[in-house]
Amino acid sequence: MTTYAVIGAGAVGGFYGAKLAQAGSDVHFLFRDDAEYVRTNGLDVRSVDGDFVLEDVSAHEEWSTLPEVDVVIVAVKSNANADVAPRIPAILRPGGAVLLIQNGLGSEPLFAQAIANQGEVIGGLAFINSERTARNQVTHMGNGGLTIAGYLPDYAAAGITDWMRAIAADFEGTSVPIQLDEDLVLSRWTKLLWNIPYNGLSVLLQASTADIMNDPKSTELVESIMAEVVAAAAADGRELPAGLPELMLEATRTMKPYATSMKVDFDNNRPLEVESIIGEPLRRGQGLGAPMPVTETLYRSLSFINSRITSS
Amino acid sequence: MTTYAVIGAGAVGGFYGAKLAQAGSDVHFLFRDDAEYVRTNGLDVRSVDGDFVLEDVSAHEEWSTLPEVDVVIVAVKSNANADVAPRIPAILRPGGAVLLIQNGLGSEPLFAQAIANQGEVIGGLAFINSERTARNQVTHMGNGGLTIAGYLPDYAAAGITDWMRAIAADFEGTSVPIQLDEDLVLSRWTKLLWNIPYNGLSVLLQASTADIMNDPKSTELVESIMAEVVAAAAADGRELPAGLPELMLEATRTMKPYATSMKVDFDNNRPLEVESIIGEPLRRGQGLGAPMPVTETLYRSLSFINSRITSS
Repeated sequence: MTTYAVIGAGAVGGFYGAKLAQAGSDVHFLFRDDAEYVRTNGLDVRSVDGDFVLEDVSAHEEWSTLPEVDVVIVAVKSNANADVAPRIPAILRPGGAVLLIQNGLGSEPLFAQAIANQGEVIGGLAFINSERTARNQVTHMGNGGLTIAGYLPDYAAAGITDWMRAIAADFEGTSVPIQLDEDLVLSRWTKLLWNIPYNGLSVLLQASTADIMNDPKSTELVESIMAEVVAAAAADGRELPAGLPELMLEATRTMKPYATSMKVDFDNNRPLEVESIIGEPLRRGQGLGAPMPVTETLYRSLSFINSRITSS
Repeated sequence: MTTYAVIGAGAVGGFYGAKLAQAGSDVHFLFRDDAEYVRTNGLDVRSVDGDFVLEDVSAHEEWSTLPEVDVVIVAVKSNANADVAPRIPAILRPGGAVLLIQNGLGSEPLFAQAIANQGEVIGGLAFINSERTARNQVTHMGNGGLTIAGYLPDYAAAGITDWMRAIAADFEGTSVPIQLDEDLVLSRWTKLLWNIPYNGLSVLLQASTADIMNDPKSTELVESIMAEVVAAAAADGRELPAGLPELMLEATRTMKPYATSMKVDFDNNRPLEVESIIGEPLRRGQGLGAPMPVTETLYRSLSFINSRITSS
């Protein structure tokens, strides 16, 4: 049986960890100040796929009491990566895996470097609408899919690894649709095609997805950014499916008004994931010769806004 | 003696009109609801160049009571132009002049069309820091220079006209430094070099000029936009002086924190001059083949923000 640790047991890590534990995996959570509360009251999952309370949670205050595990799921915000990565080797068994469920680009190299030859790094993309709604509670409002793909240096396609298969098997008994991808950076660019414009503009324009799509000028901004992301992915050797931008525009136009993760961070005065969601893709694209002036303008504007948050 | 009417007797029109009247010109003001109050209490000018109260003001409630004058000074916000322009012929004596003291580009053609052969259009650029601070009061905090230049179709250089000399002569007895320029669009591009980045970013980033200059990323945005404006002016056949962007950056870095006119409009929930200050220069530059992606991103973002103001 695969053993797991969950670092960042919030809206995303808490949900997927609880699902694994409910299906029988051995899962240990880092819960910091809330650990005792969770041990006493259980981990309460309110989900469109069915509510449940996970009892007898292995909830830890400190890294030091976490056991050595096969797979460390890291689901903290990317801003915390520099603190988290150096601590992984102490809890990862040799030959294990780090599953990094995060937005954006550029986090995997940091973890690959931190664990060196101690194991592999797998990137995870969560397509989920969830929130941490209390000390021991995660509320899952929609979707829930998890895509995972192996990481190799400079995001070379890694194929399907044994750990990916093992993780997928553990999710099989759950409601979580899991997908194994052979090419992590293709998956990342695909998700960035949505995340860069909508996360970025939702904060810059203080707008919901519906606000953005109801105005022709902001819609033009989305289209320009998407065109730049497509060009950056192409410069990275990844052809995004033709018509994907239009599909995403249409899907966003018809979905319920939605506050992006960056907007939620902004509204809570938390640091924004500007670097992983926008800065890293921008630098990668520009480094490969793709001009990205609109994305760069968005990046600089959000960097300004973010520095006001982080310095307050 | 030249006779004047002032349409838009606020922070700019009220100040320059009062200066002309104080120096002996015959000036008639459209003051709307405040006309009687101004007739009773005078027009109160609090100025770094010396306070004064203009008594016996020819203040009018309605266009219909304004006399026919030699020069109509239009100093409304550009958003009001469509309402104002058609009313000018009724108060402009044949062979007279419209002096349009406004920010941005693209307003002169509208007035030239409205007055047809009834007179000439002169563009005015106010370098002034002033505010309307009460019904009959203008407060002048700094600067005050007025640059005027004749308008010809498509902004061809118009040289110095007789009306320009006459207006300059009337300002001679005042503290207002007046400058006659031969090439209106060169003056406009020069002022836009400052106005586009600082007006635009002050609203987009909710920042003062000092905030913008204290952050490297927002400073990069200013520099990018300035480079695009320089290129647009060049495409328009106007070479801005080398080193002017650096000079403006340095001057802005050392000046007191300053809320731009667009930021003041935003803070008062008034429509923003997005089209004249950013949209028109953008379309002119792009139409001449200058790529302006950063300015376009700024334009689209501000259009979104402005439509939220105008629809509220």
